[in-house]
Amino acid sequence: MIGVDENMVVELISVGTEILLGNIVNTNAAYLAEQCAGLGLSCYYQDVVGDNEERLCETIRTALSRADILLLSGGLGPTQDDLTKEAAAKVMGKNLVIHEESKAALQAFFEKRGLEMTDNNWKQAMMPEGCIVLDNPNGTAPGVIMAENGKHVVLMPGPPNELIPMFESSVAPYLAGLQDSVIYSQTVKICGVGESKAETMVQDLIDAQTNPTIATYAKTGEVHLRVTARAEDEKAAKKLVKPVVKELKGRFGSHVYTTDDEVTLEKAVADLLLANKLSLVTAESCTGGMLAARMVNVPGVSDVFKGGFVTYSNKAKRRLLGIKKSLLAKYGAVSKETAREMAKGAAFVSKGDVTVGITGIAGPDGGTEEKPVGLVYIACSVLGNVTVKEYHFSGGRAKVRESTVSAALALMRECILQYYSEVTFGKQEK
Amino acid sequence: MIGVDENMVVELISVGTEILLGNIVNTNAAYLAEQCAGLGLSCYYQDVVGDNEERLCETIRTALSRADILLLSGGLGPTQDDLTKEAAAKVMGKNLVIHEESKAALQAFFEKRGLEMTDNNWKQAMMPEGCIVLDNPNGTAPGVIMAENGKHVVLMPGPPNELIPMFESSVAPYLAGLQDSVIYSQTVKICGVGESKAETMVQDLIDAQTNPTIATYAKTGEVHLRVTARAEDEKAAKKLVKPVVKELKGRFGSHVYTTDDEVTLEKAVADLLLANKLSLVTAESCTGGMLAARMVNVPGVSDVFKGGFVTYSNKAKRRLLGIKKSLLAKYGAVSKETAREMAKGAAFVSKGDVTVGITGIAGPDGGTEEKPVGLVYIACSVLGNVTVKEYHFSGGRAKVRESTVSAALALMRECILQYYSEVTFGKQEK
Repeated sequence: MIGVDENMVVELISVGTEILLGNIVNTNAAYLAEQCAGLGLSCYYQDVVGDNEERLCETIRTALSRADILLLSGGLGPTQDDLTKEAAAKVMGKNLVIHEESKAALQAFFEKRGLEMTDNNWKQAMMPEGCIVLDNPNGTAPGVIMAENGKHVVLMPGPPNELIPMFESSVAPYLAGLQDSVIYSQTVKICGVGESKAETMVQDLIDAQTNPTIATYAKTGEVHLRVTARAEDEKAAKKLVKPVVKELKGRFGSHVYTTDDEVTLEKAVADLLLANKLSLVTAESCTGGMLAARMVNVPGVSDVFKGGFVTYSNKAKRRLLGIKKSLLAKYGAVSKETAREMAKGAAFVSKGDVTVGITGIAGPDGGTEEKPVGLVYIACSVLGNVTVKEYHFSGGRAKVRESTVSAALALMRECILQYYSEVTFGKQEK
Repeated sequence: MIGVDENMVVELISVGTEILLGNIVNTNAAYLAEQCAGLGLSCYYQDVVGDNEERLCETIRTALSRADILLLSGGLGPTQDDLTKEAAAKVMGKNLVIHEESKAALQAFFEKRGLEMTDNNWKQAMMPEGCIVLDNPNGTAPGVIMAENGKHVVLMPGPPNELIPMFESSVAPYLAGLQDSVIYSQTVKICGVGESKAETMVQDLIDAQTNPTIATYAKTGEVHLRVTARAEDEKAAKKLVKPVVKELKGRFGSHVYTTDDEVTLEKAVADLLLANKLSLVTAESCTGGMLAARMVNVPGVSDVFKGGFVTYSNKAKRRLLGIKKSLLAKYGAVSKETAREMAKGAAFVSKGDVTVGITGIAGPDGGTEEKPVGLVYIACSVLGNVTVKEYHFSGGRAKVRESTVSAALALMRECILQYYSEVTFGKQEK
């Protein structure tokens, strides 16, 4: 393809004994990997290595032999254990020299906080000769970029609250500048369609793809389809992405809840409620507040989210939602009827426009042949019109509950859209 | 040390393009790393590689050259992309042969679920000759152990809900059996003490340690101190661990909520409620149901957890908990007074013995100079005795909310213990 270069190859190296000990989860690698994918870089390896000079040098050497760009994180601090800069400079054949600006910045950092500066902190002002020094407004260790013979070695601090701002402000623009072409991607997010069905529905597009490409990302209860194009400039890349996004929207119809990277499923539901001036009330049993908690992920949701009930026990279902003892006795707490009454009870007690009732068996105990672990009923009432659905989820207690919450969000969305389409077309009967 | 061998070396290899793309966070590696540390294995490298045979083989070869044990996860599924078993068998010089038991188990798995079995699924019944096949009750791909010339290659499925049970039931005992000496560890879990304070409090023990060792793991709102000893048998190892655990219990006093690996903070709180025949009701604003959801993590919690209110909006605080408009106007929704009234309101409305009120500013918006993002008030009422505490949490919206939930659990525990110690010693005044 004219004007489109091959992907550059990046390798991620996370440095730190605390990762090797399982002390912390390596979220930096996931963050950097996603960012690199978005920048059109190919990543074939991620490595984790401890604070040991020999092993660190070996890892850097191996990575240099198979990648164009190395992104290292961690090990830039002031202690003797922090060896990343020393090791990288050694492998790249660079001496460390005092960097006056970093020295001054360090002094200012300590003075501002009224802290005494210990001798080992000066180590952080020593930089490989000829490197680019990256500002770290959130910590004491600056970042470093060394470039030579078409290889780029980037050193970033380990704490995510230092690494992420540094990557965004300094590293991402540097990496984008290395490439002749521009990458643009857009994500089509769908709910209410299973992963394998979604994949089948786009398999022909994936098989035929060259530029743009389509990648499917399965999330709990959702599928994200990322369309990525490479072109000489952003305008041209966007032009390539547009018809594919349109095609995907056509295939998945109302299951597409957004094409905006920033919009989550709960945000889409909150926006839908807001647009229709509907208030929401939740009534949860097996999820025990997880649906409410997910709605509260959305900043400012108090405009639509009136409140929620957690009615895990039968007593709570009766007391808080007014569900009759006889109904619970006849159908059981996990039943279509109880879910329906929970939604109706929440609507009655709270005057919410949209109410949701959730009841199910999350396990590990409580399952029977007739009502196995994973059986969940979700009821959604939209201005008095109640829909109840039965679900069978697999996995452990946590997984069943997560899947339930996503299904509830999808059902709420579906019921609201359905209600208004029926109202619009005069088919509203109930 | 007599009878104690050098640590065996383990290397973790996570296989999957979804990790390289940053699609998922590599929690398996953190889990396995922590488990391996607990088993007394040394880990110097973790690798991530995609579903590519050549690169996978190269990674396995390199790992074999520097470790005794390889733990691979992912890439055992039925699709053509799943290559881990094929690559590992190739490097180990083993042919794949049909494994009749796995074939029968696969058939049963599909029949039970009424699913059609596609041809590619048979791939999962092909096993390297002479290997140990590990049962996978939670999925279709069995695990594999190949051992030769002192090298041990373990293959496990990628989904955590399959990997973790398999590791616990099959892999951990196998790895323990490889070592001449026995490793025994016990975790002292503490809450209500900050990470750096906890570390300072045990620094002298850590500095002086040889066998057993003490490792600190910071969790949100908790610190876990793991004491690990190596000895010729379990009895001897336990004997080494015991006095250190006792010392830690003495230093942290009532902040120690358990020394049982299986007991979570929410479980400890649920047990404390149950032991004192106390019912719990929650009233949450900024956490929006997360505390309730965490209590419902505990199977069978309905014996003590009566129910919960999610009152994110002021309206809900007034309607559901009966908080006066004038109080909200005077002190604001995020105030000591509102938290107190939430706990008292929940107790009044629901007749719960222990009630918790949570209100705070989780961000990103809503903060002011006077009431910044991260400011949280938690009130806990135990049979009418209300304690309110002010907290300042850092991090983003999600982090602030998580920290709040852990702090609420710690506060509940503290208040219940306090109440009964005062009752016991006749100091109950209120």
